[in-house]
This record gives sequence, structure tokens and C-alpha cells, in this order.
Amino acid sequence: MTGRDDYFCFSSPGTFCGVPAATLDDLGNAAAVIVGAPFDWGTTARPGARFGPKAIREGDYLGQDGTRPHLDSGIDALRELGVIDVGDVEMPPGYIEAGLDRITAVVERIAGAGAVPIVLGGDHTVTFADATGVARARGDGTFALVHFDAHADTGETHYGMLHGHGTPMRRLVESGAVPGHRFVQVGLRGYWPPPQVLEWMREQQMRAFPMRDIVDRGLETVVDEAVALASNGADGVFLSIDIDVVDPSAAPATGTPEPGGLTARELLDTVNRLGRELDIVGADLVEVAPIYDGPGEITARLANRVVLELLDGIAMRRRGSPPGA
Amino acid sequence: MTGRDDYFCFSSPGTFCGVPAATLDDLGNAAAVIVGAPFDWGTTARPGARFGPKAIREGDYLGQDGTRPHLDSGIDALRELGVIDVGDVEMPPGYIEAGLDRITAVVERIAGAGAVPIVLGGDHTVTFADATGVARARGDGTFALVHFDAHADTGETHYGMLHGHGTPMRRLVESGAVPGHRFVQVGLRGYWPPPQVLEWMREQQMRAFPMRDIVDRGLETVVDEAVALASNGADGVFLSIDIDVVDPSAAPATGTPEPGGLTARELLDTVNRLGRELDIVGADLVEVAPIYDGPGEITARLANRVVLELLDGIAMRRRGSPPGA
Amino acid sequence: MTGRDDYFCFSSPGTFCGVPAATLDDLGNAAAVIVGAPFDWGTTARPGARFGPKAIREGDYLGQDGTRPHLDSGIDALRELGVIDVGDVEMPPGYIEAGLDRITAVVERIAGAGAVPIVLGGDHTVTFADATGVARARGDGTFALVHFDAHADTGETHYGMLHGHGTPMRRLVESGAVPGHRFVQVGLRGYWPPPQVLEWMREQQMRAFPMRDIVDRGLETVVDEAVALASNGADGVFLSIDIDVVDPSAAPATGTPEPGGLTARELLDTVNRLGRELDIVGADLVEVAPIYDGPGEITARLANRVVLELLDGIAMRRRGSPPGA
Amino acid sequence: MTGRDDYFCFSSPGTFCGVPAATLDDLGNAAAVIVGAPFDWGTTARPGARFGPKAIREGDYLGQDGTRPHLDSGIDALRELGVIDVGDVEMPPGYIEAGLDRITAVVERIAGAGAVPIVLGGDHTVTFADATGVARARGDGTFALVHFDAHADTGETHYGMLHGHGTPMRRLVESGAVPGHRFVQVGLRGYWPPPQVLEWMREQQMRAFPMRDIVDRGLETVVDEAVALASNGADGVFLSIDIDVVDPSAAPATGTPEPGGLTARELLDTVNRLGRELDIVGADLVEVAPIYDGPGEITARLANRVVLELLDGIAMRRRGSPPGA
Amino acid sequence: MTGRDDYFCFSSPGTFCGVPAATLDDLGNAAAVIVGAPFDWGTTARPGARFGPKAIREGDYLGQDGTRPHLDSGIDALRELGVIDVGDVEMPPGYIEAGLDRITAVVERIAGAGAVPIVLGGDHTVTFADATGVARARGDGTFALVHFDAHADTGETHYGMLHGHGTPMRRLVESGAVPGHRFVQVGLRGYWPPPQVLEWMREQQMRAFPMRDIVDRGLETVVDEAVALASNGADGVFLSIDIDVVDPSAAPATGTPEPGGLTARELLDTVNRLGRELDIVGADLVEVAPIYDGPGEITARLANRVVLELLDGIAMRRRGSPPGA
Amino acid sequence: MTGRDDYFCFSSPGTFCGVPAATLDDLGNAAAVIVGAPFDWGTTARPGARFGPKAIREGDYLGQDGTRPHLDSGIDALRELGVIDVGDVEMPPGYIEAGLDRITAVVERIAGAGAVPIVLGGDHTVTFADATGVARARGDGTFALVHFDAHADTGETHYGMLHGHGTPMRRLVESGAVPGHRFVQVGLRGYWPPPQVLEWMREQQMRAFPMRDIVDRGLETVVDEAVALASNGADGVFLSIDIDVVDPSAAPATGTPEPGGLTARELLDTVNRLGRELDIVGADLVEVAPIYDGPGEITARLANRVVLELLDGIAMRRRGSPPGA
Repeated sequence: MTGRDDYFCFSSPGTFCGVPAATLDDLGNAAAVIVGAPFDWGTTARPGARFGPKAIREGDYLGQDGTRPHLDSGIDALRELGVIDVGDVEMPPGYIEAGLDRITAVVERIAGAGAVPIVLGGDHTVTFADATGVARARGDGTFALVHFDAHADTGETHYGMLHGHGTPMRRLVESGAVPGHRFVQVGLRGYWPPPQVLEWMREQQMRAFPMRDIVDRGLETVVDEAVALASNGADGVFLSIDIDVVDPSAAPATGTPEPGGLTARELLDTVNRLGRELDIVGADLVEVAPIYDGPGEITARLANRVVLELLDGIAMRRRGSPPGA
Repeated sequence: MTGRDDYFCFSSPGTFCGVPAATLDDLGNAAAVIVGAPFDWGTTARPGARFGPKAIREGDYLGQDGTRPHLDSGIDALRELGVIDVGDVEMPPGYIEAGLDRITAVVERIAGAGAVPIVLGGDHTVTFADATGVARARGDGTFALVHFDAHADTGETHYGMLHGHGTPMRRLVESGAVPGHRFVQVGLRGYWPPPQVLEWMREQQMRAFPMRDIVDRGLETVVDEAVALASNGADGVFLSIDIDVVDPSAAPATGTPEPGGLTARELLDTVNRLGRELDIVGADLVEVAPIYDGPGEITARLANRVVLELLDGIAMRRRGSPPGA
Repeated sequence: MTGRDDYFCFSSPGTFCGVPAATLDDLGNAAAVIVGAPFDWGTTARPGARFGPKAIREGDYLGQDGTRPHLDSGIDALRELGVIDVGDVEMPPGYIEAGLDRITAVVERIAGAGAVPIVLGGDHTVTFADATGVARARGDGTFALVHFDAHADTGETHYGMLHGHGTPMRRLVESGAVPGHRFVQVGLRGYWPPPQVLEWMREQQMRAFPMRDIVDRGLETVVDEAVALASNGADGVFLSIDIDVVDPSAAPATGTPEPGGLTARELLDTVNRLGRELDIVGADLVEVAPIYDGPGEITARLANRVVLELLDGIAMRRRGSPPGA
Repeated sequence: MTGRDDYFCFSSPGTFCGVPAATLDDLGNAAAVIVGAPFDWGTTARPGARFGPKAIREGDYLGQDGTRPHLDSGIDALRELGVIDVGDVEMPPGYIEAGLDRITAVVERIAGAGAVPIVLGGDHTVTFADATGVARARGDGTFALVHFDAHADTGETHYGMLHGHGTPMRRLVESGAVPGHRFVQVGLRGYWPPPQVLEWMREQQMRAFPMRDIVDRGLETVVDEAVALASNGADGVFLSIDIDVVDPSAAPATGTPEPGGLTARELLDTVNRLGRELDIVGADLVEVAPIYDGPGEITARLANRVVLELLDGIAMRRRGSPPGA
Repeated sequence: MTGRDDYFCFSSPGTFCGVPAATLDDLGNAAAVIVGAPFDWGTTARPGARFGPKAIREGDYLGQDGTRPHLDSGIDALRELGVIDVGDVEMPPGYIEAGLDRITAVVERIAGAGAVPIVLGGDHTVTFADATGVARARGDGTFALVHFDAHADTGETHYGMLHGHGTPMRRLVESGAVPGHRFVQVGLRGYWPPPQVLEWMREQQMRAFPMRDIVDRGLETVVDEAVALASNGADGVFLSIDIDVVDPSAAPATGTPEPGGLTARELLDTVNRLGRELDIVGADLVEVAPIYDGPGEITARLANRVVLELLDGIAMRRRGSPPGA
Repeated sequence: MTGRDDYFCFSSPGTFCGVPAATLDDLGNAAAVIVGAPFDWGTTARPGARFGPKAIREGDYLGQDGTRPHLDSGIDALRELGVIDVGDVEMPPGYIEAGLDRITAVVERIAGAGAVPIVLGGDHTVTFADATGVARARGDGTFALVHFDAHADTGETHYGMLHGHGTPMRRLVESGAVPGHRFVQVGLRGYWPPPQVLEWMREQQMRAFPMRDIVDRGLETVVDEAVALASNGADGVFLSIDIDVVDPSAAPATGTPEPGGLTARELLDTVNRLGRELDIVGADLVEVAPIYDGPGEITARLANRVVLELLDGIAMRRRGSPPGA
């Protein structure tokens, strides 16, 4: 196997796969913009997702040359979409609300410029901030939120406080940025949340497809329904992917691994499909905490490919590929 | 994702998921009792399963608060079954037979009190001891033994000695605690045992479903047959799970990993089903050797969930859920 | 689980599973000969495959006693085929072409003696050398090359040079050792090679079954077609397996892991089938770089089993098992 | 080597070396009280010190039986001082100021009860809280603060905010809890802080003994002077130990390792000496982040011993050992 | 840096540094014989020393060619002493007494043949067996035992049993193989054994030099005294080295690491000196448990060099180097 | 502890500590220029030093802001010397001589421009190339080469070839770039090279100070002599530092670790002194192979500081600090 003949991959320019670096003041015509949210002080268990953006950007053995032609589609989405990377949002560790405000502001600017913000987390707390940023640019309640995760993240509070990686979806419902009926959750499993939280979710008309459902009815069927739900009446979709939706065998480097999840292949194919079939207005990929990967670094590398599959799907859609193609 | 709002998970009370600690003299009305067997001097290859009980008890990112409502069933089996943890059996490293005797005595007391002993190994040698303990309480030959494992564990001797992690099933057949026709083995694969041992197993009417069978006919079909065989004429089932029945991708932290096994999802679902469909009179989960996990700790966390799925299945059965529901 | 009662597995004699050591001057009647190619200076990303031969030879918990009866077939292929191990080809690190020449010479001698050379890499650069060695013994263009890999390895150059782990297949086509229409590639995925290389591959009539195809049509169908293509007009098949064809969850210890690959089970079963259904004239297993495995060592152990499954398949074929049995 | 004959060390009761658990409402006559501060959201680089308290408590191969007779002194300080463990302070991740307040309140209660609080961090941010807690109980400016660290932790701000692991000493000076002239810092080295911060430190009359000084004049001489400075006019000493004062070879598991530090032996002996020669009114041990330890777990085990050496020194002093004995 | 030009070091013949393999029936004129004792079921904490012999044999980057000229002395002790390797003693895991008997028998044969047995452990339990083996060949009470360790290993019992890695020295005293006054222990530290055991040791006239002594008076002085004591009236010295005498920074891969020990350099130089100044009649090197080393493998490599330094010292002595030269 | 308040250190611009990136065509007035040589195909044992340049550049917890005021000297050498980073030399893996030529050409340009090239290896093979580059700019035989290493690197051949990491010093002597009498080697130890190579070294008048010498006479004395030798008649000094001169406890991440070396502190202080006392005309730091570091990453971080200490020393010298100050 090889990298590019004309590039040496042992160092890194620090941007996602080597796409051009840019600033918020100079977004140009980029259709998608990468931004890092190195934030992990909302984690209730193992921290380390602050190094997620760096790991996802560099989690690749190919030359950091800003070009990635997809083997199946033939599309080089990085170039076709003019993807750029604006670096990380700066924020003070341990000041959770100050950090969220900064993320919101940055994402609002990107979305306001007409580009799709692709936020690299960071723990899942950041979704409150980044989905709010998109809502500020496009209007509250206008878009659906498709959420891949082992956990519903709808906790009432976080150790008695508002924000943490178990509460962002509740906060979004409460603020009105994303009403409950616009939520579609996929991959839930395990022993959380407790019944009263599930009851609240039902009251809000949030829709969930737990892994149990996927095992029983098949992933394709479930995604068909998720696509239909997300498309129904919404003006675009925000896609939030917690890497722990994947089974820990393929994604060990995360804070709260829950066995029994999707395979890497399933997530890659599903994300590509969603890019093709839905109008993505923003996305985040969260909870990659590289220190738990061990020397193989498989989680970071999977996360890198999840971003690329999404971009490939978006590019196919923009070319006019028919839905489901 | 989150833990409980009212509990902090960075330390541990030392019991399984924080259930109450208890002693053998005070088992109360517990329907299931956790006990550790920190024993690994029966391993022929990589040791370390002595730390299995600790790792399984703590292999969780949720608060150690003794409550685990299952997302699918809604049942909080830890509370519903009144699960307690009596700690580890004390035993001297390197004195294999003395250690086995102590495990037998402890398990006999638990089973004799009418509770389901759930033994956290330790290497697979302990199954000779714990299944014998159940047999002492309930009668030799009265229950079936369903055995998930990559290996049959029916070796004639262990380096010329009687006990080791390759011989427990043979010793149980020989002692009469579990006659050969009451054995159902699932997941066998690889390059062991040699033909003469397989011949002996056939003579004893032991039934095995190797992975080959699962790949060819499907796990559901195989489990249907295993359930039927285990239910046939026996008064209850002892379930022995060697974590190496799972593929090494999801369970690397074990002494003798053999590629080509079940997925984590398959084991979790199957164990839950067996809890629902069979009358479990005892169980063990063995060969978790956490040092081989690397920083992701995925095997220990899987093992923790295997125990919870079993308890959920048992609780569903006790509620009167119809078999196979 | 257990090892042999009569052997202690904590040390190693240094040959594959303990088969007899031999020299090139004394190959005897061995039907298959193991040889190591500790070579990793053709890697574009993470090195370490020089320790692949050692890791594959020792990647086993069973006694190093030269016997491995297959649980399903009952065949002890190591003994039935008289497998021997001639150790590693000696070669100077960093002198890529000198090293390749030495591999070619060794493999030519093994193939010339009528045995199947089984080369343990090393990075994929070595396939140029070992397939050339077989071609020297049997004639250019006489055999097919079935290639399992995430990557096509048909790069035009390697940093401007001829050899590297991204170019061996192109060099084999160019030299005529293996013409393009004799290539069958399985498992390709990701973001390499670029379109102009894919175009060259099509011009050479190379056939590829990417993972996309396997997901859509099923592995069995794809392997049916691969077997048919490889058998068509060729006098035997060289089987080249890059461990990165397997998903990184099961094979993290490799230089260029690409998520979304085969499961370990799928590779094991497929390799066994190919051994049964095709006339294998040589094989290599490459890109196992054990340092990236972490303490579980799952990749090396998988690789050990891949070799054993191939030998079992070959032995079944020699016994006259009908194709596809 | 061995543990106790009467105790099995493969599990843990969760308290420091197995001393009795207690609550703040029931401190009894304990002369020293262990408390955990699982807080790492003040780290500017690698997080993970939230697991420090657990790792320090369990970082030991001896039985968790609450007894540790010192080989040299013969004193069993855990018993002689009646050491108890009140568990961890609960606090919400990411709410830095709320967490600090809770630590202060807990430490104030312990110090107010006349016991020496021994705080297990957590990152160094917690020293602002715990030294403030002691100051509330004993009076601002009444005690000296001896600070072992590679870094002065006197930064003006933390990403523009007040609190973080680079600012606690400045905050203590500013609040008056510990005036600058009561500070003695030992072990500073590297490339931080910048000159203007050093200038501020001089203005505050803070005294520092950098590693340069220790190399040039010897550790014993430097500690002689530190003891004299700390004793001069103060009513007791708070001892704050950042594990990164030790060379990374012996303490790799920390957030900001700086090469060129003390040996483990030097820190152990010095801490024992300070316990004997100074009137310790409080202490903390911070910045142990166990995930960076690798499988040897050497940092956590060193940290466990640092606490024990301090307790041994305190116990010797209480027995009336002459200073410097 | 380099290995030999004529040898490739990526595989291993399985003997210590590649010295000739031999059997007990064919010891020839070897002055020193390597034998492995892969035994770790006497460990009270972390197991894994069963892989010590393999790790020590292969813990080297030089060619496994059986030659190691010492840079300082110029002596190639492996060749000059005709060192051979008889492999591992086979023994059944978990049958502690059966295993010890086998080690004793093997060591007795080696010592009886006039060679110095060099036993690679294994945990420290094996010293009871191997020192007994030497005593059988040379007579009880005839030789001194110099013991480098963090722990005295004189526990009364091991979980109520006789043998374990905390009791071998007591058993040797009790059996008379090595009377108490022939013991010299170096490097003790930490929190074990308890006072009553220390009292017993004094009654037996065992001499100990704890680390405290080495820090206070210097290693050279202590070793001067140890040499004098060991030489006094004894007919030779058995040298038992527990790798945990070294500080965990340089020897993390051991079961019971205790901080504050010797540097690697100090152990290497001291062992060399003892080889030169004492009449070594047997030696063991124990408690190397390689799994705790992490990827650097520094403990195993140190252990390999400790053996080589001892052999170099022995060879110098045999050449007639004056004591202390 | 903290980084800069105004900078966030979770990502990296890819240059050494964040100094400005530059190209060879635009070296400006930089007094020192960083260049990476990601080359490890000359290693005889563990590879991985190709990732050394990246690891050394990023091996720091401080903000990547291009400023590093030294705590002791107060000098910010990065700014005072105008240090820039020209990235890595591109070279084809496995083509050892082509790679060396490219390094020579780059270093010649840097040295020719009057700057001090600081080469980040890569394995030690690169010293042949980079010292040759300096010789081309300044004249053969004009400068001394001070070489810190566990190994002399004067092997006659490398597996029969000219170049590899065991031969660079011999090649430099042979080519005349650095005559034997201009060599000063420090830190040699272990079991290599063999006597005939030592004899050749003596014939060439190469001077070596083995670790034995440092232990016996003290590092300061040895460095005094080394400085005197290096200064004698030479027009400047090239400083080549193999990180394995340091003990493996502090530098495990290297290909050929040899126990018994310098402490981290000793190397840091010595390098700083050499920068102050010698006229450095070029330097390299080689054999950092980060994959062997484990999660603490201590070797890479030490290497980063070694470079900074050298730069600080150079800056002090340029300010006119008296030699030996």
C-alpha cells in the first residue's frame, strides 16, 4: 500500500488531511469548513477528547496533500467542495459555558457564510454549542438533528449543572434550537438513561432507533425510516456523530464505550448515505479521545474516514446524484 | 453521554456496579450473588485473570450506584433481583486444589441459600469448582451446563496433573457433577483439542456447536437447538462463559485468544436470551485478564455488560416474560 | 482452554508453530515451506513489519510442537504436508533492491523444489520479489495472483523510485511475471489509488472486487467469481494477503490500516476455501507490524491462524476434497 | 516478595491502603485525613488527573489492610495517626469555580477539626482551594507553603480566566491566604514562566530553589535552607507536591512532564524529612494522571509511597523525634 | 549503532543471546549453564514472570550469535565460559510444590556437574528450589546467599501455605540449606515485612543493608561490607537478584515495584564486581514480568545485561583478575 | 502548571516549538535552522525513528508559539537566534544512499548560508550525510565531531553494505570529512563493537570516554577533557547526539537501548555546557523512535528539551558568556 509518490507523510501541516488553512475572515467559497473544538471538561468519565481534533486531522497514512479521491465514487470531495480548515476554537479549560459560547460564535459565522460547518470534538457537550450556532444562522427549529450515539444525551442535569456531555440534546430541545420532534437518534443501547428521562424524551416526541431495533429489523430499514423522519418538514439536517455509536472493538478510544454497537463499515456506509440523501447543514464528530487507542490508533483513523465519507456523500448530492444512488 | 447526576464515578466502592456488599452469613433474599474467584494459576499461556473480578466489577463508566435500568427492557435487574456482592474468595496463589476447594465451598453456600451464584473468574479452572459447588447444593447430574468458549476444555490432564484451565469440563464429567449428555458447548474453533479428546467427548455424548456451525446455519438456529438440548430433562442450567468465545477484536484481554469468534453484540444478545429462556442456577464468566486490554479496557467493559445482560434476562424470566419474548 | 499436556509454551523454538527447522539445501519432501522476509523499508507510513515473521511464527498460545489438528477438518496440515521452516532471508536494511533479489532467489529455490513457498512478510514490497521467484521457477504469466488488500498496490512509482509497498503489483505486471489479466484483487477501499492509476489497472485488465462490492453482493458471491477468474486458464495461483484487508478492529497492527474491511472470520474462512478450491503455488502474508498491536497481540495471532487455514485448505485439496466442499 | 498472609490484594476497598472509610461528620480523632479531589479541568495539556485519587489509593501491591509499618522507622503511621479516608469531593466536571468552592469547604472542615488534610489531586488548580481551606481554618498568612514542582504555577491568568493549573500560587498570594514571602518553591526548571512572571514572583518575595540550584549545591543544602525559610515565623507548613517535580523517567504519568527532575528516592526521602522537621498543617499531592503510566503503573505507585513517607515523617515528629534525626 | 554484520537479529534461536542449546545429559565443559524457570504462581500481586526467561533471553538488539565481548573488559564471557542454555524446566502451572521439586532436580544436576547454574525466573519462589538444588550438590550451609531485593522474602507463610514469592528465604533458613548467618540482603525498602518478621530475621543473624543504608553511606561502602560478610567462612556464594531491587523507573516490569531503588547502572556495576570478587556457585535473576514493560521493553533488556555483567565478572575472576580490580 | 495564557496547545503548526516555517531559499538571518531527516531504514533492530522529527517538534506541553525563555539563563534562544524550521528532507524509504545524498545537499545549503543546521533524525545513519554536508560547506577535516552515544557506530560494514546506523562514523573517517583524531565519543557501553573495531578506532586516534570512565572519574572531569580535545586545533564542532546515550529509564523510545547510561539531567546540562563552551557548527539528535515511548511520551519530550538546551547554550556563547560560565 502506499501514499502519494510526491509527498511524504511523516509530518503534518496540521489541517484536516492537509486541506488549506484559513481564518474565519477568509472563508471564500468553501462549501464545507473544518473546525476543531478541543474541549473535554464536560466528560463524566475518561477525559482526553481535547486531543480529538488533532487526532482526527492527522489520523491518516496518506500524504497530507488535501486530496482524497474516493475509491468508489471517484470524487475528490476535499477539492470539489473546496474544504478548508480554520483550526481550533480557543477556549479556557474548565470554563464550560465560556467555551460553549465561543464555539457557538464560530459555528454561527461559518454557517452564516453558507458553508457546512464540520466540527471535530471534543466531548458531546459541544453539540449544544455547535447546533445552536447553526440555529442562529438558519433559525431555531428549522432543521432536524440526526444523532448517532450509544447514549441519548438528554440528561436533566450534569452533576446539578446545566452543561455536560450527557445533557446537550435536552438543552437544545429546551432552548428551542432543535425541537424534540426534529430529533432522530440511532444506535442507543446499554443502561442509560433512566426511565424518567426516557419518558421525557417521549413527551418531546423525540424518535429513537436503539441498537435492538437495528439488530431486529436491519440497519437499512432503520436508516430508511430515519431519513424519512429527518426529511419531513425540516429545512436541512444537522448530523451529530458520537464515535461511541460504533462498537468498542472498532472505536475503543472514547470516554464511555458501550459494547454492542455498529461496525465501522456500517457507520462509514451510513454516513455516506446520509450525505447523499439529506441536506446537511452542519455536522459534528465527537468523543474521540485518542489516548485510549493504544498504538494502533484505530479510532482516530476511523474518525478521519467518517468525515471523508460524509464529505463524499455531500459532494455526490451536489452533483445531483439521485437519492439512494 | 453521562453518568448519574447524583453520583461521581471516578472512584469505586469495590462491588459489582456498586451493589451492596454482603457476607456469606448474610445473603438475605438476594436472588443472585456476585462472587470473585481471583485465580489464574491454571492458565497454560498468559496469566492475569486474577484481576478479572476487579476489572469486571469496575468496568463501567456509569456511577457505581447499584442501579442499572436496561434500556430495552426497562428493568433494573440489580435492584429487582436484590443482587449483592460477597467479594472475592480468598485463596493461596499456586495451590490450585486448595483454591478450588474454597471456591466450591463458597458457591455451595450461595446456591444452597437459593440464590444464583455469579462467579467472576479467574481462569476457566474455576468452573470445576463452582459447578461442583452448585451440584453439591442441587444434586449431581441434575442440571445442564451450557458452555460458551473457543475451546472445549476437556483435556485429559494439565501437564500431567488433574487441574488447569484446559480440563475442568472433563473433571466435571468424570466426577458425575455434570454428566456428558448434559453439556452443550457453543463457539468452539481453532486447533484444539486433538482428535482423541474429541472422540472422548463424543463418547460422553457431549454436544458441541462450533463456530463453523454458527457461520453456516446462523446463530439463532444454533441457540434454538442449544436451548432445547439444555432444557431437555435437566433441572436448571449452569451457564459458563469464557470471554474468549468472543472474537479477539472485541475481547483481546484474555489468555488464549482465538480469532474468528462471536461479536460482542452476539454474545450480549444470546446471554440475555438464555437468561430469559432457561432456568439459570449458576453462572460464571471467566478468562478476563485485564492487563492485555490496553488503554481502552474494552474486554473488561464487555464482561461487565455480559453479567448485566444475564441478570436482565433472569429478571425478565422471573417477571413471567414468555420464553423467546 | 489449554495447550498440549506434554509441552510448555512459554518459550519458542523460533519456527512456525514449532515445525522442523530446515535449510534451503535440505527441503526434503515438504509440500509447503515457511520463509520469513523481515523487510519493512518499503513502507510509506508506520514501519515495523520486519518483526512480522517472528510475531506470526510465535503468535499462538498452543505448544510449539509442530502439530495443529484443525477442529473442523480434523486434518493436521503441518504434519500432513510436512511443513518446514527455513528461517528468514538475510538482507541489509535500507538496501531495497538487494533485499528483493535475495528473496526472489530463495523463493525460486523453494518453488523449484516443488514445494509451496509461504512467505511471511515484511511489507508488501516483498510480493514483487516472491511472486517473481515463483515465476522464475514456473514461468512468467503461468499463474494467477489473488490479492487480498485494502489497497491495489499499483502505484506508478514510490517517491520517484521503482520499489516500495505501494508498487509491487505494477512491477509484476510490467515485468510480465504476472500479466494484468491474471490479477484478482479483493477488499479494496478508501482513498487510494488516484483515478489515473485505476485507469491503468483497467487497461491491464486487472480485476478488482472492492469492499463496496462485498457489502452489496455478499462475500460468497464475490469469492465465487474470484475463484472462477483465478482458475480460468492459469496454471496455479499465488495468494498474496495483506493483513490490512481485515478491518482495523481485528488487525490494528499494520502500517496503513483502513477501516471498513473484512472480519477476521471472513478472512479465515475465505483463505481456507481458496486453499481447497485453487491450486496454490505460492503465498505470502504481509504487513503485520506487531508493535502496533498493544498487549493483546491480536493481529499476530490472527496472522498465525490465516497461515494455518491456508495450509488446512491445501491439505484438504490434496486429499481430494471436492472443490467447494 | 509478598503481601500480608492474611489478606488478598486483588481487590480494593477503595480507601487509601485500606484505612477506614469515614465521613466529614465523623472524623473522630484522626490526626490525618485523606480526601480525593478528582478534578482535571484546569489542565492546559494532557488531562486525566481526575483518576489520580483512585490510582494513588490503590497504587500498591500490599494487602489493602490499613497497616503499613515503615521498614526504616518501624512506625505504622496509618495506625499511629489513625488515618481515615473520607472519599472524594463531589464536583461537576467543567465548572471550575464551583468545584474549587467544594474542595475549600471540605478541607476547611477537616483542618478545623484539628486533623491534617491530605488532598489527593487532581490537577494543581486544587491547591488554590485546599490551601484556602486550611487558611480559613487557621487564618490567612499564618502558615508557609512549601511547593515541590517543575513549574512555579504563578501565571497571571489561565486563558484569560482566573483559575487553572498554572495560576493557583498567584491566586493564593493575591487573596492573602498565603503571602508571597511564605512561599518556598523547589525543583523549578524548564521554559516557564516568562520573565515578567518571574519578576512578579521576586516582588512578592517568593523564594525558589530551581533544579539548577539543587544540581550545583546539593539537595541536602537546598532542603536545609527551605526548612529554615519555611519555619521562619510561620505557624505550620502546607506542603504541595506536584508529582512532576520528579523526573519523567520515574513519574511519566503527569500532564506536563519536564525532564531533569528529582529522582524518586530524592522525593521520598525529602518528604519524609519535611514531615519530621516541619509542622505540617495540610498537604496535597497533585498531577498524577494514571492513563499516561503504561502497564507498569510506576507513577501511581510512587505517589502512594510519597503519601506514606509524609505520614511516617509526621508520626516520627509526633513521637518527639528530634528535627533532622 | 549496529548489530553484527553477519547476522540478522529480527528472529531468535530461543537461547540466551544465541548461545548453544544443550540438554542436561550433555553439559560438556560449560562453566555456566542458563536454565529457565517459567513459574509465576507464587506471586501475590501481578503475575507474568513465567515469560521472564523468554524475555531475558531475547532482550537484546544484537545478533543472537552467542558472542558478547564486553566493551570495558574486552572479554567475551559467553565464549570464554562456554555458556550453554538447557531451556526451561517444564512444570505444571498451579502446582507450586511439584514445580519447585523439578527446578531443584535440574539445578542439582547442573551444580553437580561443576557448572554455575544461572536460573532465569520466574517469581522469587524459585529461589527456594534453586538454592536447594545447589545445596544438594555442594552441601547444606556451605555457601552464602547474597540477595538483592526490595523485599526480604522471609514471610512466615504465604496465605497460610509454605511456598510463595514472599517466603523462600525463610524456607531456606528453616531447611538448613542456607543458615541465617550466611544471608546478606541488599536494597530492602518500603513497608514490608512487619516487625515480628524483622525480629525473626535478627534472631537468625541474617544481615541486611536497606536502601536507607546505601543512601546514607554509599553503595561502595555497603558492597565492601557485603562482600566481606559473604566471603567470611563460606565456600562460595549464591547470588539471587530480584529485579525489583532496581528503581521502577528502570525496571517497571515486575510484580511488586517499590520506588526508591538502585539505578540500573548501580546494579550492573555491582553485579560485575560481585562476579569478580566472590566465588559464585549459582545465581538467579527473578521477577521480570515483561508484560508490564510497555513497548520500550526496558526491564527485559536490563535483565539481559545483568546476566552478562555477572558472566563477565566470573570470567575476569577465572582469568585471575585480582579482587576489586 | 501551565502553558501560555494566550495560546492553546492541543494542535500544532508542525514546526519545532512553533518557530517560523521557512524554505531553503529563504533562510534569512537565522543563526540556527531546524531540519528533519525522517529516515529509519538504516536501523538494525527496532525501526520507527522516521517519526522522530515530528515527535521532537511536538514533544512539548507549552504553547507552540516559537518562544521558550530558559528559566535559568533568562534567554529566549528561539527568538534570539531567529530559529526557523525548514521541514523534513523528502526521501524515498528503502533507498538508503539516495536519501543520504538529499540530506547532505540540504545541510550543505544551510551550513553554507552561515547557519547552524540542527538535524532531527532519523536513525544514526544520517550523521554520515549531515556531517558531510557541513564538511562540504566548511572544508573536510576542519571541525571536530563530539559524539554522545552508547555505541561507537564505527562498524566496518552494515550487513555487507556501506551504510547503516552502525557505520556512519567509520564512513566519515574514511571519506576524510572528519578525521579520526577529530572524534570525541562519550557514553559508550555494553557489548559492541568487537575488539577488531576498537583496534581500528585506536589506529585512527579516535578518543572515547565510555560510561565506565564517567562513573569512575565523574562526568564533569570527562566533559572537561572532551571540551579540551574538541577545541584543540579544530575550527568548530559538530555535535551528534544519539538519544540512547541516556539510560533507557529516561529514553526508552529508541531502537537499541543499552542500560547504564546518563540521566536526562546529565545530558541536558552537558549539552547546554557544550553549547556555551564550543563553537557549534552543526548538530544532530538521532534515534528517537516515538512508538516505543508508551503513553508518557517521555523520550520525545526529553529530546525536545535537548535541542532547547543546545540552543540556549549557543545563545549564551553568542552573548559573550565566558567559557565554562
